[in-house]
Amino acid sequence: MAIAGFELDPRLAADTHPVVSWGLSDVLLMDDARFPWVVLVPRIAGLTEWFDLAEGERATLLNETLALGKAMHTLFQAEKMNTAALGNIVSQLHIHVVARYANDVAWPAPVWGVGTVKPYAKASRTHIIDRLSRELPRL
Amino acid sequence: MAIAGFELDPRLAADTHPVVSWGLSDVLLMDDARFPWVVLVPRIAGLTEWFDLAEGERATLLNETLALGKAMHTLFQAEKMNTAALGNIVSQLHIHVVARYANDVAWPAPVWGVGTVKPYAKASRTHIIDRLSRELPRL
Repeated sequence: MAIAGFELDPRLAADTHPVVSWGLSDVLLMDDARFPWVVLVPRIAGLTEWFDLAEGERATLLNETLALGKAMHTLFQAEKMNTAALGNIVSQLHIHVVARYANDVAWPAPVWGVGTVKPYAKASRTHIIDRLSRELPRL
Repeated sequence: MAIAGFELDPRLAADTHPVVSWGLSDVLLMDDARFPWVVLVPRIAGLTEWFDLAEGERATLLNETLALGKAMHTLFQAEKMNTAALGNIVSQLHIHVVARYANDVAWPAPVWGVGTVKPYAKASRTHIIDRLSRELPRL
């Protein structure tokens, strides 16, 4: 479903690759091979805060966020999921869902702004996108 | 409402001050005067991930989180709200709700691990807790 006037923020578009499109939001893979990290973006133009959504969409976005978190937790056998809506740089509402491990390069700090982004090699990127496309629920 | 077996994590207890108790969660003030920063903690023993909650509680926690975000946004005239469930250090589920400004000391980075915590002076702490107790919605 495309929603009139919505366009993915150019910076988000540059930093990610599309994985799957759900009822309200698109799931994007963050192009940083250091962490299993996806971003959920509701296709609503001009939206910056979750609380500005209508009640039904609030619940749908929660449902999509938790389904994504649970699936990532299982798929990547994460020790902890990090889930965040920040938006200080890109104000378009987007929810980060990151699988974390006690031995990852940022632990226990959050992942944002830590070290240098490590883009996926093409084959690894194709592999993880295929895997996510197959294994994530259909919502 | 107290829930059997729930106890606030000692580190969260040390870093915060209680503000108000809602239906599912307690609202705590983070003792860091650099940012208007509260934490929401569902009173459920052993909980670490939002998706492990039952469906009704998931929705209640969303309702409490968004009400808190919206109220903080208004009260502190924030430019952007940051909302996050991380839990890499304290695994007990807790939702950070932080009012952010383009001129705060961490912008545009997230607040976690930035610089040195600046505890409130006693009078300021009493003032902000009184204000939050008065102005936050009853949930």
